[in-house]
Amino acid sequence: MPTYNAPTRDLQFVLHDVLKVHESPIPGFDELAEDFTGAVLEEAAKISRDVLAPLNVVGDKEGCKLENGVVKTPTGFKEAFDQVRLGGWYGMDMDPEYGGQGMPIVLNTAIGEMMSAANMAFAMYGGLTHGAASAIYAHGTEQQKRTYLPKMATCDWTGTMNLTEPHCGTDLGLMRTKAEPQPDGTYKISGQKIFISAGEHDMSENIIHLVLAKIVGGPEGIKGVSLFIVPKYMVNEDGSLGERNGVSVGNIEEKMGIHGNSTCVMNYDGATGFLLGQEHKGMRAMFTMMNEARLGVGMQGLAQASVAYENAVAYAKDRLQGRAVTGAKNPDGPADPLIVHPDIRRSLMDQKSFVEGGRAFMLWSAMQIDKAHRAGDKDADGLISLLTPVVKGFLTDIGFDMTIQAQQVYGGHGYIEEWGMSQFARDARIAMIYEGANGVQALDLVGRKLAADGGKPAMAFFEMVKGFIAENKDDEAMKDFIEPLKDASKDLQACMMYFMQNGMKNPNAALAGSTDFLHLFGYVCLGLMWGQMAKAANTALAAGTSDEAFYRNKLVTGRYFMARMMPATKMHRARIESGPETVMALDAEAF
Amino acid sequence: MPTYNAPTRDLQFVLHDVLKVHESPIPGFDELAEDFTGAVLEEAAKISRDVLAPLNVVGDKEGCKLENGVVKTPTGFKEAFDQVRLGGWYGMDMDPEYGGQGMPIVLNTAIGEMMSAANMAFAMYGGLTHGAASAIYAHGTEQQKRTYLPKMATCDWTGTMNLTEPHCGTDLGLMRTKAEPQPDGTYKISGQKIFISAGEHDMSENIIHLVLAKIVGGPEGIKGVSLFIVPKYMVNEDGSLGERNGVSVGNIEEKMGIHGNSTCVMNYDGATGFLLGQEHKGMRAMFTMMNEARLGVGMQGLAQASVAYENAVAYAKDRLQGRAVTGAKNPDGPADPLIVHPDIRRSLMDQKSFVEGGRAFMLWSAMQIDKAHRAGDKDADGLISLLTPVVKGFLTDIGFDMTIQAQQVYGGHGYIEEWGMSQFARDARIAMIYEGANGVQALDLVGRKLAADGGKPAMAFFEMVKGFIAENKDDEAMKDFIEPLKDASKDLQACMMYFMQNGMKNPNAALAGSTDFLHLFGYVCLGLMWGQMAKAANTALAAGTSDEAFYRNKLVTGRYFMARMMPATKMHRARIESGPETVMALDAEAF
Repeated sequence: MPTYNAPTRDLQFVLHDVLKVHESPIPGFDELAEDFTGAVLEEAAKISRDVLAPLNVVGDKEGCKLENGVVKTPTGFKEAFDQVRLGGWYGMDMDPEYGGQGMPIVLNTAIGEMMSAANMAFAMYGGLTHGAASAIYAHGTEQQKRTYLPKMATCDWTGTMNLTEPHCGTDLGLMRTKAEPQPDGTYKISGQKIFISAGEHDMSENIIHLVLAKIVGGPEGIKGVSLFIVPKYMVNEDGSLGERNGVSVGNIEEKMGIHGNSTCVMNYDGATGFLLGQEHKGMRAMFTMMNEARLGVGMQGLAQASVAYENAVAYAKDRLQGRAVTGAKNPDGPADPLIVHPDIRRSLMDQKSFVEGGRAFMLWSAMQIDKAHRAGDKDADGLISLLTPVVKGFLTDIGFDMTIQAQQVYGGHGYIEEWGMSQFARDARIAMIYEGANGVQALDLVGRKLAADGGKPAMAFFEMVKGFIAENKDDEAMKDFIEPLKDASKDLQACMMYFMQNGMKNPNAALAGSTDFLHLFGYVCLGLMWGQMAKAANTALAAGTSDEAFYRNKLVTGRYFMARMMPATKMHRARIESGPETVMALDAEAF
Repeated sequence: MPTYNAPTRDLQFVLHDVLKVHESPIPGFDELAEDFTGAVLEEAAKISRDVLAPLNVVGDKEGCKLENGVVKTPTGFKEAFDQVRLGGWYGMDMDPEYGGQGMPIVLNTAIGEMMSAANMAFAMYGGLTHGAASAIYAHGTEQQKRTYLPKMATCDWTGTMNLTEPHCGTDLGLMRTKAEPQPDGTYKISGQKIFISAGEHDMSENIIHLVLAKIVGGPEGIKGVSLFIVPKYMVNEDGSLGERNGVSVGNIEEKMGIHGNSTCVMNYDGATGFLLGQEHKGMRAMFTMMNEARLGVGMQGLAQASVAYENAVAYAKDRLQGRAVTGAKNPDGPADPLIVHPDIRRSLMDQKSFVEGGRAFMLWSAMQIDKAHRAGDKDADGLISLLTPVVKGFLTDIGFDMTIQAQQVYGGHGYIEEWGMSQFARDARIAMIYEGANGVQALDLVGRKLAADGGKPAMAFFEMVKGFIAENKDDEAMKDFIEPLKDASKDLQACMMYFMQNGMKNPNAALAGSTDFLHLFGYVCLGLMWGQMAKAANTALAAGTSDEAFYRNKLVTGRYFMARMMPATKMHRARIESGPETVMALDAEAF
């Protein structure tokens, strides 16, 4: 059975050596002393290892069961949920005014990675609640906030997001769920929603559904969509629970993975809903939730790659097969461990260098959100808006690839469910799909974000890369990092130029290259992160450290990434610059 | 539920326009007239569509059940197996002397692709029988051949391959299963084998296990391994079945996919075995089986990509989401079909161009085997030996990637088991692992095959590519194909040079690049195939044809491959030429 020992040392490295959170002027960051975050991370690591990870296989095997309209979560989930809840792990980064603990998002993200790695299906219950609470926080009335947020901060009540319908996923303008205004200011919500994660379960007293629906008589299409709060149980004025609302689970889906999370068909039969935010501005309100959720999904992709990597390493050190080509490394044993073989190392280095680079990118992104929210930094806001599709799309696409590589290290055992590697792969797969399939992320990046605000965030990104290169280009110790970053950044700029020059005449010229562009962008981001990590490692080594091996290994891993992973940018650039003609030439009937 | 309509038109194109099988001087190829192969393929397509494909989901859902030592296959499997058997589809390419039909392997491979696409788990029962029969055919005594082959040619008796043990997969020298010589010339086989596909089931009268074991007192390690025939039921002199042999199924594994095939733990408790081939030469005999099996596994990777692509296309044409960026394509409908969107097309073209190129490569490879076997062509034998790891590794790695891309086209529905795309992905995953994990294929290619026979086959491959380029370089209509092929071939040669120059001093220099080299090689092979297909299409168009659209679309698809897929060679080359240092630098403990 797989195990999970959270990478607390590496998380601390990113937080303190690279992001230097404690020194940051962002309000609240002064609390993030190394001792404090270290203690918090160790506690979260313990609960991840001892409570959540052992339930991961259980959740996969048992799945969720629907009986008489009630969903039963897998054995042990409820007890673990209570334990995490009572441990104060939910609502850590929410506003203390409404029951939260007011911690920066960057710290919550580090904890989130661990819980998601330990048990992705389980972690989703808390994650979705957080997303729903964020939307209520951003768009709710004071009364709505007081009613729901304190309970959601503790996960006594959990939350959901209801967007998809059987005939519409990405294209929400086709939505049929309707909201009929009532004389008392509430709405009657009717319709069917599908793919509702944590839509119904037995782990919380109440479930607060956020539901997109069209107010009867409103505008057609996407402009007529509004967002509603639809609680499973109505909430009385004193906060106690009242009657059951007209929402019920119709079915739970059999899925490829995340079996421990109940993916529900939800039926709304004249359920009472409360408008959240303004009429017909549902998409705006929903996007508050979506952007946060997208970062969370990027984290999931990274987290599965991370735990899969950890287990692949353990197997590669333990399993004896063959001899090292340069001479036996375990001469007294019947064979050498797998890890002596160059191609196994190549695979493990792919994984390790991606996971560590991705982790830095994820935490750096979380810090941009903190900067935007806590310090009102508009540039940080623009940057994170630009990079959200990259975090989501790149970390889940490559995270999945790496999970598959980790599974591959196990040979035949990787395919047998008992060994747990298949589950990591099956669970990781969903992250490429939900919260906007990765093709939609690429479209968002190229079709919207690149040009947003007159292209200012995109320019700011390039300035940041250029600045880092200029700052370090004469440092011999940084050479292995700066040159490849410069090359890759040129590839990215060339493609952006290509889009600008050709996309106006023919939008397909940009869109046909969108997924390649997203990946190219991802490599540049991770290259920049590796540059920053290398600099931090050099600094620590120059200053003298008792943990020399850690920093030296960090440099070795970074050099691998720059030498072996960054060349992907050349391929993506060539694909993009080959133009849209070959992509669009075939008649639809000819496929 | 997914469907399968076999690509008979495309198979005919490869057989007749590209490979020109009917004109080939290879003995027996004169039978392969276009009408004949057309009729055979249509029949195979029908049985694949109507009988095998509908059972694919059934097999996945029900799986195989072990009860009291008996394995029950999924509902309908036995009846379908009888139908395929009685239809004469097994043993098509086996020797008529022993019950086969004497058809070329190239035709059998075309049929194999269809059956594997329709129902991979089902097709494995026949595929493994074929592999076992090939080993008996190549290494058995006349009596062994007469005893087993006619029954195996019809799949009245099925076959298995028993290599892996719990502690050894790739490194078979660690094997513990032993064979004790008996006075009557037979052996008593004892030990445990795992991952035995079709190890026990209810679809055939007898099961002929081929088992690797060490003769007691023989040499240590791999040199002491011999191959044995161990029938489930002993065979009497008159061919009737006798007593049950001492072999039994201990367990069936729960796997990620191919649930319809029983993957067994097999226990040999003093079972009677008959030596196949020579003492201690078991590996040689096993490799006869393995090489054929590896081509078959490459075919599986391609087949899953093919059926997944077919279903992705159907969904992309049917599902309405969003509007084409260049103006509505379905103005009367609520939205346009997915296929209007450039990134969906990009994904479908990746899949289509890979599948068609891979199909040509697979059939071309099968024809090399025919050439070697039927015409005694040593060059063809060398070439296919060189390329076997490429067929296996490349078609399964990229085939899996493409299956994942096809699943992605379905968005959320791709993750729901009901829609069937998850099964294609889960089934395709095994092909990267079994019959030698793809890392082992890469090692075989770089560590053994490249230098085999003084490098003659490798040189012959380059000569073939060069010859094709020289022949077509002045043909304007071939320009889009020749240039990229030339570039990619240069990348391949540069890497081979790199290995030669550096691998002698440091074998890791070659092995650290082995997987990249295998992929690079695969792209060059598919690039060459696309060149040949383009030429065939140009020829047909120049000659005048009633099927102009087919040939024009072939050219369009080929141009996509050359422009968008071939640039991967640049990335692989850069990874290889970055050297082994970053791969090998980290201490094992530092992972």
